[in-house]
Amino acid sequence: MEQRRFSMEELVAYCNQYGFIFQGSEIYGGLANTWDYGPLGTRLKNNIKDAWRYYFIQRRENSFEVDSDILMNPRVWEASGHVSGFSDPLIDCKDCKARHRADSLIEDFDSAIKADAMTQDEMMAYIKEHQVKCPICKSTNFTSIRQFNLMFATKRGVTADSSSTIYLRPENAQGEYVNYLNVLRTMRTKLPFSIGQIGKAFRNEITPGNFTFRTIEFEQMEFQTFCKKDTDSELFQYYKEYGKEFFMYLGLPSERLRFHDHEKLAHYAKEATDIEYEFPFGWGEINGTHNRTDFDLSKHQEYSGKSMEYLDEETKEKYIPYIIESTYGLDRIILALLFEHLHEEIINDTDKRIVLNIKPKLAPIKVNVLPLIKKKHSEKAKEIYQQISQRMMANYDVTGSIGKRYRRGDAIGIPFAITVDDQTLENQLVTVRNRDTMEQEIVNVDELITYLESYIL
Amino acid sequence: MEQRRFSMEELVAYCNQYGFIFQGSEIYGGLANTWDYGPLGTRLKNNIKDAWRYYFIQRRENSFEVDSDILMNPRVWEASGHVSGFSDPLIDCKDCKARHRADSLIEDFDSAIKADAMTQDEMMAYIKEHQVKCPICKSTNFTSIRQFNLMFATKRGVTADSSSTIYLRPENAQGEYVNYLNVLRTMRTKLPFSIGQIGKAFRNEITPGNFTFRTIEFEQMEFQTFCKKDTDSELFQYYKEYGKEFFMYLGLPSERLRFHDHEKLAHYAKEATDIEYEFPFGWGEINGTHNRTDFDLSKHQEYSGKSMEYLDEETKEKYIPYIIESTYGLDRIILALLFEHLHEEIINDTDKRIVLNIKPKLAPIKVNVLPLIKKKHSEKAKEIYQQISQRMMANYDVTGSIGKRYRRGDAIGIPFAITVDDQTLENQLVTVRNRDTMEQEIVNVDELITYLESYIL
Repeated sequence: MEQRRFSMEELVAYCNQYGFIFQGSEIYGGLANTWDYGPLGTRLKNNIKDAWRYYFIQRRENSFEVDSDILMNPRVWEASGHVSGFSDPLIDCKDCKARHRADSLIEDFDSAIKADAMTQDEMMAYIKEHQVKCPICKSTNFTSIRQFNLMFATKRGVTADSSSTIYLRPENAQGEYVNYLNVLRTMRTKLPFSIGQIGKAFRNEITPGNFTFRTIEFEQMEFQTFCKKDTDSELFQYYKEYGKEFFMYLGLPSERLRFHDHEKLAHYAKEATDIEYEFPFGWGEINGTHNRTDFDLSKHQEYSGKSMEYLDEETKEKYIPYIIESTYGLDRIILALLFEHLHEEIINDTDKRIVLNIKPKLAPIKVNVLPLIKKKHSEKAKEIYQQISQRMMANYDVTGSIGKRYRRGDAIGIPFAITVDDQTLENQLVTVRNRDTMEQEIVNVDELITYLESYIL
Repeated sequence: MEQRRFSMEELVAYCNQYGFIFQGSEIYGGLANTWDYGPLGTRLKNNIKDAWRYYFIQRRENSFEVDSDILMNPRVWEASGHVSGFSDPLIDCKDCKARHRADSLIEDFDSAIKADAMTQDEMMAYIKEHQVKCPICKSTNFTSIRQFNLMFATKRGVTADSSSTIYLRPENAQGEYVNYLNVLRTMRTKLPFSIGQIGKAFRNEITPGNFTFRTIEFEQMEFQTFCKKDTDSELFQYYKEYGKEFFMYLGLPSERLRFHDHEKLAHYAKEATDIEYEFPFGWGEINGTHNRTDFDLSKHQEYSGKSMEYLDEETKEKYIPYIIESTYGLDRIILALLFEHLHEEIINDTDKRIVLNIKPKLAPIKVNVLPLIKKKHSEKAKEIYQQISQRMMANYDVTGSIGKRYRRGDAIGIPFAITVDDQTLENQLVTVRNRDTMEQEIVNVDELITYLESYIL
């Protein structure tokens, strides 16, 4: 059987056609780099979150999930370094008003240049000297470069003071860190323990997108492990590998995953690795694992005046724990899973189908219930559909030939199609067709849910 | 058995002590009206979301969940009327800089006055005439009143233009409305159909809080039903009742729920009802059901230029659908469930326990695994804990007497405690204690998961 992966252009069209992902605010011409999940995309997203919670929280001892607010006290972002340091060098075209990253402008002009190693003045000098043009309107009439903070700022209205600027969080992490003492105390736990969180973060980035790969609003699944200093490197290695195992558990194959160790480290990091997936547009980060040392908790101790020290009951030592962070980009994982499992297949040399071979556990809809003949079998089929709907997400489809309905289900990744026909009315038997093998099995209605759950759970 | 409900003050302390809800950014003195969910609160929240998804999406035909971005094209909020009309009349104290709602200031001064019926000038005149004082510093030195928009505004940085002010959504609803055509098209559905969404919304309100009852960042579970004009009132009635059924399904008793029909309607609404729960501080809205007519889709048609009309294939009529909205405040539901199910109980006249009698389906942790004697039974207990953790959220507790461990489990609502002792080692038998009845049953380890799931699912 011949299989072909989708290109980016085809995937975007597919997501729009089948209700996975739509352009954000589409009827108003969109809002750059925002995307809305449609009914199937939302279910896929929920299923991945559930899988992550199972893998990182439920089945692990001393792992706790929190759900902290997006809006935090602005001192949090002073302590973390985001207010002073989380910025891009931006430059505006005076003619067409387009805004660019100065470093990208230079690197797009000459890919041999490493602009992120240049100072602001060096970049400006380079742009003038080489007459770098605006990619939009070809003008060379630029403003000067200034550092543009990537955090979205807004005003809180409790008092009339000017001190009420607050930010949309640019990462979830600080929500876990400021709750470290709360979790330690209330869960009566010891090092090492972990705090996970699933939630949205926001970055005012101007670099476009590759569809949902880089957006201004995105969802992270984060896992922060608090540990003793001398265990940090071992745990860093452990969570690198655990991340890869998780991706394989979701169905991404080892050969399309690789580690990418960072040479240039962020100011807080001692070690850092990405796990990358091989997208059609190249290798792209879907996870980052960082040894953040005691940087964050030390800063919070300094800025808040609250001791972040941990008392080791065995050794009686007091110290600030180290943190191993492992961050999973939910939107990127969805993108990877769609690229991995979506295929155009040629069957028997002539017939073609689109199939999303995603794991049943992650499939947006688990079962497609199909009456063979509308008039004759609808009533019984509806009854079966309603029974199944009590246990799992099901779809009822009555329009078109059985073959066409199979194909539609395949295209959106429904693992099982159940055909209700005369033998159902007579003997309570249904035909269950498998999406991947396209083989059919006869199952008794009474055993149907047990049968389906054995594959899906 | 005597039972006592918690007061608000006790509940706040309980939530903090046991890891349900913490003050947001607590180590920095908080950020007014923000709260973070701790490990137990987060699990409770997730379980309520799952229950809602089951009740509103999974088991209903033609019900679709979407997940739209918080950041939308600003034209959305012009069309919806939020840019021009979603505001409070605010007034600042010039001395202490505190910001107040002018209408609240007047009503707190004289509860007989209905200030929301007064114009801005009338309110200002009243405040001057009656020498209304700042509740914080007792000054009468106020600024004038101005309309303060409740949306948080921020700047998007794609271009250098000033036109890039965007907003944090103050309600989820518009995310469903702008995707109405997308869902209709991709799900191949017909009227009536529904779009649900769970997500965060933000309002720059200055009115304090009642704990998590009124916050600046909150989570909504919304259900929008698109229907024919002449079916709107019938569906409005239906969803009022369905909402109440859902609350009873979650475990809120009928006698602490009531409908509150609105007399004063919002500009978009033809009919509106709240479902209120009887909190210790009085009746409070936990759901709102609104007949929004064709107002929203008509506005979006006008502002976007895209036709929002629906073609009725039976009658061949074209019209803009009506919308019945039913909104569930997730944070308020959590608050109601905690107040409803948290009790101090006096057992046998002398013994006391705190117990959270929440439905097993919603319980943050389902099973408490307890080795009777640490040295002897830990290994077997760990093994059982790990097996159960594959299927549901479990806790392992080895510290303190069995009685103390039972009490701790009761206090955080764990429905089942499993004691591992000599008979487990000898005959694979465990003692299962029921949180509510405090009765014990002997169960074989092999049948344990089936036993537990029969109560929990």
